[in-house]
Amino acid sequence: MRIIGIDPGYAIVGFGVVDYIGGKFSVKDFGAITTDKDTPFPKRLCEIYEDYCQILDNWKPDALSIERLYFTNNQKTGIDVAQARGIIIMAAAQRGIEINEYTPLQVKQAVVGYGQAVKKQVQEMTKNILKLPFVPKPDDTADALAMTICHAQTSGSLLRNIKTSNI
Amino acid sequence: MRIIGIDPGYAIVGFGVVDYIGGKFSVKDFGAITTDKDTPFPKRLCEIYEDYCQILDNWKPDALSIERLYFTNNQKTGIDVAQARGIIIMAAAQRGIEINEYTPLQVKQAVVGYGQAVKKQVQEMTKNILKLPFVPKPDDTADALAMTICHAQTSGSLLRNIKTSNI
Repeated sequence: MRIIGIDPGYAIVGFGVVDYIGGKFSVKDFGAITTDKDTPFPKRLCEIYEDYCQILDNWKPDALSIERLYFTNNQKTGIDVAQARGIIIMAAAQRGIEINEYTPLQVKQAVVGYGQAVKKQVQEMTKNILKLPFVPKPDDTADALAMTICHAQTSGSLLRNIKTSNI
Repeated sequence: MRIIGIDPGYAIVGFGVVDYIGGKFSVKDFGAITTDKDTPFPKRLCEIYEDYCQILDNWKPDALSIERLYFTNNQKTGIDVAQARGIIIMAAAQRGIEINEYTPLQVKQAVVGYGQAVKKQVQEMTKNILKLPFVPKPDDTADALAMTICHAQTSGSLLRNIKTSNI
């Protein structure tokens, strides 16, 4: 199974592409789509869509893993992240890619093993699990890679559950 | 100038297309893109994008007029409306259409003449200004047509101001 993880945003969209086969991870690509703050917002959305579609068409993932969105502090930023996120999930749906949403709690539990883990712990474990020589930067990229692990572990557990129930 | 007005949403996207030439309105089209609540959300976004792009390519508007988004009550609904709205402004930007955002206050002031107007007054005035035989349904369509008036009046005022300042 090839998974693309996305940390949604409009200034920085972190992404990571991994293969998860036979319980083993193989990192294919990671990075960030960035847009300039001086570019009009609608144009930034176009740039994200173009770059992201290229990544999808290049790597042809089976599944997208993306964080569920909550609004807490800055409403304006939250609206703009949601606007960009709509494009990200639409582009995946246009290609028939399975879309999976996880909460920050689910990501921490899947990657570190407990829901109270801090960002640094998630990043270190992401590095270790994926056997990367360093924690990828920016944080958005590391977060996107953590999303791939979360989906792999979650869907892996489901498969194990199904197998168990079939015994 | 050809204006498309949009009332953004994910279940119902109201739209209206009008020409505003020499201070006169001519209604070209109006209606609503609807999606089924039982369809997965990412697929609903794809449907909105497809139908909306067809409308844009059919009518080739010069300007989009769309309401600014605020979140008040239901956060979940707000996020989903924002996700759909991102697609709506991106599709316009992809075609080089000028994008204009207005607050509900600006719409009421432009259409009725004062910011405390209630929905019914805005709808009645929209019908009268556009010389429609009835108030279009659903409300989302009427709201979208009101957006076109708001942009026409606002850009018309700007033109008048520019002319005045050139005397």
